[in-house]
Amino acid sequence: MPSLVTQHLLSLLRIDLPIIQAPMAGVSSPAMAAAVSEAGGLGSIGVGGVNVDGARAMIRDVRARSSRSLNVNVFVHAPAPADAAVASAWIDRFRPQFEAIRGAPPARLTEIYTSFRDDDAMLSMLLAEKPEVVSFHFGLPDPSRIRALRDAGIVLLASATSLAEARLAAAAGVDAIVAQGYEAGGHRGIFDPDAPDDRIGMAILVRILARTLRVPVIAAGGIMDGAGIGAALQLGAAAAILGTAFIGADESLADQGFRDALFSDAAQHTVMTRIISGRPARCLANRFTALAAGIAATDVPSYPIAYDLGKALNAAAKAAGEPGYGAQWAGQGAPLARALPAADLVRLLADEMRYR
Amino acid sequence: MPSLVTQHLLSLLRIDLPIIQAPMAGVSSPAMAAAVSEAGGLGSIGVGGVNVDGARAMIRDVRARSSRSLNVNVFVHAPAPADAAVASAWIDRFRPQFEAIRGAPPARLTEIYTSFRDDDAMLSMLLAEKPEVVSFHFGLPDPSRIRALRDAGIVLLASATSLAEARLAAAAGVDAIVAQGYEAGGHRGIFDPDAPDDRIGMAILVRILARTLRVPVIAAGGIMDGAGIGAALQLGAAAAILGTAFIGADESLADQGFRDALFSDAAQHTVMTRIISGRPARCLANRFTALAAGIAATDVPSYPIAYDLGKALNAAAKAAGEPGYGAQWAGQGAPLARALPAADLVRLLADEMRYR
Repeated sequence: MPSLVTQHLLSLLRIDLPIIQAPMAGVSSPAMAAAVSEAGGLGSIGVGGVNVDGARAMIRDVRARSSRSLNVNVFVHAPAPADAAVASAWIDRFRPQFEAIRGAPPARLTEIYTSFRDDDAMLSMLLAEKPEVVSFHFGLPDPSRIRALRDAGIVLLASATSLAEARLAAAAGVDAIVAQGYEAGGHRGIFDPDAPDDRIGMAILVRILARTLRVPVIAAGGIMDGAGIGAALQLGAAAAILGTAFIGADESLADQGFRDALFSDAAQHTVMTRIISGRPARCLANRFTALAAGIAATDVPSYPIAYDLGKALNAAAKAAGEPGYGAQWAGQGAPLARALPAADLVRLLADEMRYR
Repeated sequence: MPSLVTQHLLSLLRIDLPIIQAPMAGVSSPAMAAAVSEAGGLGSIGVGGVNVDGARAMIRDVRARSSRSLNVNVFVHAPAPADAAVASAWIDRFRPQFEAIRGAPPARLTEIYTSFRDDDAMLSMLLAEKPEVVSFHFGLPDPSRIRALRDAGIVLLASATSLAEARLAAAAGVDAIVAQGYEAGGHRGIFDPDAPDDRIGMAILVRILARTLRVPVIAAGGIMDGAGIGAALQLGAAAAILGTAFIGADESLADQGFRDALFSDAAQHTVMTRIISGRPARCLANRFTALAAGIAATDVPSYPIAYDLGKALNAAAKAAGEPGYGAQWAGQGAPLARALPAADLVRLLADEMRYR
C-alpha cells in the first residue's frame, strides 16, 4: 500500500507507479516516453534543445503512441551573458583537439537554446497541446507563465538541488519538487551555476525536503532499481525519477559509443563538469571531461554557448571514429544500468519494489 | 524482522540494533560509546589522534562504563611526505589570520599523528585490550597486522569510498565494509587523497557494494534518523553508521562554538576541504573553509602535517573568542541534528525505524 504522499502524487499525475522516466534531452525519445507511460509510470520528453516546432512534433509523436500522462521538460536558465573574448579564447583552447581529429572548430559560438523564461511561442504551444505535466530545470519562469500553465490544468514540477531552491519552487506554486541529488547524471538543475554549490546527496536532500516542505518530493540521483526506489520512498519521497536507468533502453537515442561506454568499466567513473556545455553536468569520465583539469569556471563560456563548441567537437570526433568527446551524461548509478525495452524496465522496477 | 544480512552482522558484532555511532576523534567520547553500546547499538571511539597510552585509557574508560561491544577506530594513512618548503609557505600563508587574532603561527609543522600502519605499540595494546571491533580509516594495514587482530578474535571493519577500495578491503579479510558516501562528515576515508575521487553518494555506493560484494556493507553518510537507517537497509546495507547525528549528544566533546553552529542556519552548508588537515574532510562552512578558494591541493602539506597548523589556528582563534576556525566536521545531514543524550538518541532511532 503506497504512502499517502505517494497516493496523492499518483492521483495528481494520473499514473499508477511512483516511477518517472527522466526527460533527457537528446537521449529520451517520444517512443520511450510513451512506453513508460503505457506501463504505468510517467514518461517524459525534454524539449530544451529543440524549437517550438520540434517540441510540438515530439509531443504529437508521444500522443500518437499513448493517451496516458506525459511530462514535457523545459530549460529555464538565465540568458547567457555573451562574452566574445571568452568565446574566442575557448575556441582557441580546443584547436589542438579539433586538429587531432582533422576537424575545424566553429568560427564563432552562439546561444543554441532559447530559455523557456523568454520563449512565448513555446508557452503558447504548451497551452495548446496541454501535456498533463510540465517540468522546469535550471530555475523557474515568471509568475504569469506559471499561472497560465496552471490555469490550463497542467501539473508543474521543478528541479531543486537545495532546500533554498525547493522553497522558491514551492512558493512559486509548483505541484511537486524534483530533489536532484549530486549523484544525478546530466545537467545539475542548480539555479545559479556560479553560486556556491553544497553538492547535497540524494538521500539527505530528499529527507530534508520531505521533512521541511508541504509539497510532494520526487527523488532524483543514483536510483537504478526497485531497492533504490523503495529507499527513496522510505526517506519520504512520493516517487522517484530515473534517468541513467533508461539510457540503455531500446527506445533510447544514445549512440553506440555511449552505450558501449555505459556497459563497460567506464561506467564506474563519472565527473561533474561544466566544460562540455557551460553548466555543471555529470558525464561518464571520457576524453572530453579529462580536459577539465586546470580550466577555471570563468574561462568557460556561459551555458549554452560552450555547448555549441562541445557539440561541434563531438560531431567532428564521431566522424573521425572517436566516441570519447560525447556528452555522455550519466549518473553515479551507471554501473547498474540495464539494456531492456523501457516498458520491460518499468515492469521490472515495479516488481523489484514489490509494488504491483 | 531484520534481513539475513543484518542478522548476520548483529550476531558478528554482538549488538541488538543495526546502529553504529561513528568514531569521531575529538568529538566522540568513552561516555558516548558506552551509552550507545548499552542502548544496544555499537559505540565507537577514535584513537587516531592519541598515542597508545591515551588510547588504552579511553578503552578502559569505556570498559568501566559498559561490558558490551566496543569499536576502536584507527587511522591507516600513508605516512606524510614531509616537504619543508610546502610547510614553510603554508605557515606564511596563514600569518594574516594569526595576526588578526593576535596569535602566532607554529614555527614549524610536524606529523602530529602516527599511522596505525607503523604503530607496533598500538597494535600490541589492541591485542591485549581486545576491543570487540577495530575499524580502519584511510586504508588498510599490512596482512600480518590484520591476521594478528583476527587471530585475537577482533572483528574488523574498513571504510571504503568506492567499489575498488571496498574490493581491496574485502580481499584483505575485513568482516564488513563501511560504505562512506560523499555526504559524510569528517575525514573522507579515500585511500589515496591525491587520486581522482568519484565522490559517490551514500545511496548508490551502498547499492553497488551490496550487489557486488559478499561481505556485509554498513552505510555511512547523511543518515540522521530512523527513515535514513531504514532506507540504507532497503538498499542492502546490513547496518548504518551515524556520526553527525551524535555531535549534539550530551556526551559529545564538541565545543560550544561547534554546537552553536550545528544548531543554526550554518548547518545548511558543508564543504569538503583539505586545507584544515591535509586530507579531504567535510566541515560546516566557516571562516576556515572559506580560505580554501584558490588554494591548489599541491600547496597543502600532507595529512596530518597541515592539521598541526589547523589546530594551532583554531586554538589561537578560540582564545580570542572566534569560533570560526574550528574543525567543525559534519555531514550534509547537519540540519537534522538533535541534542539528546546518546542513549536516548539510539532509542529514538530504533523507535523511528520501528525496529524494536
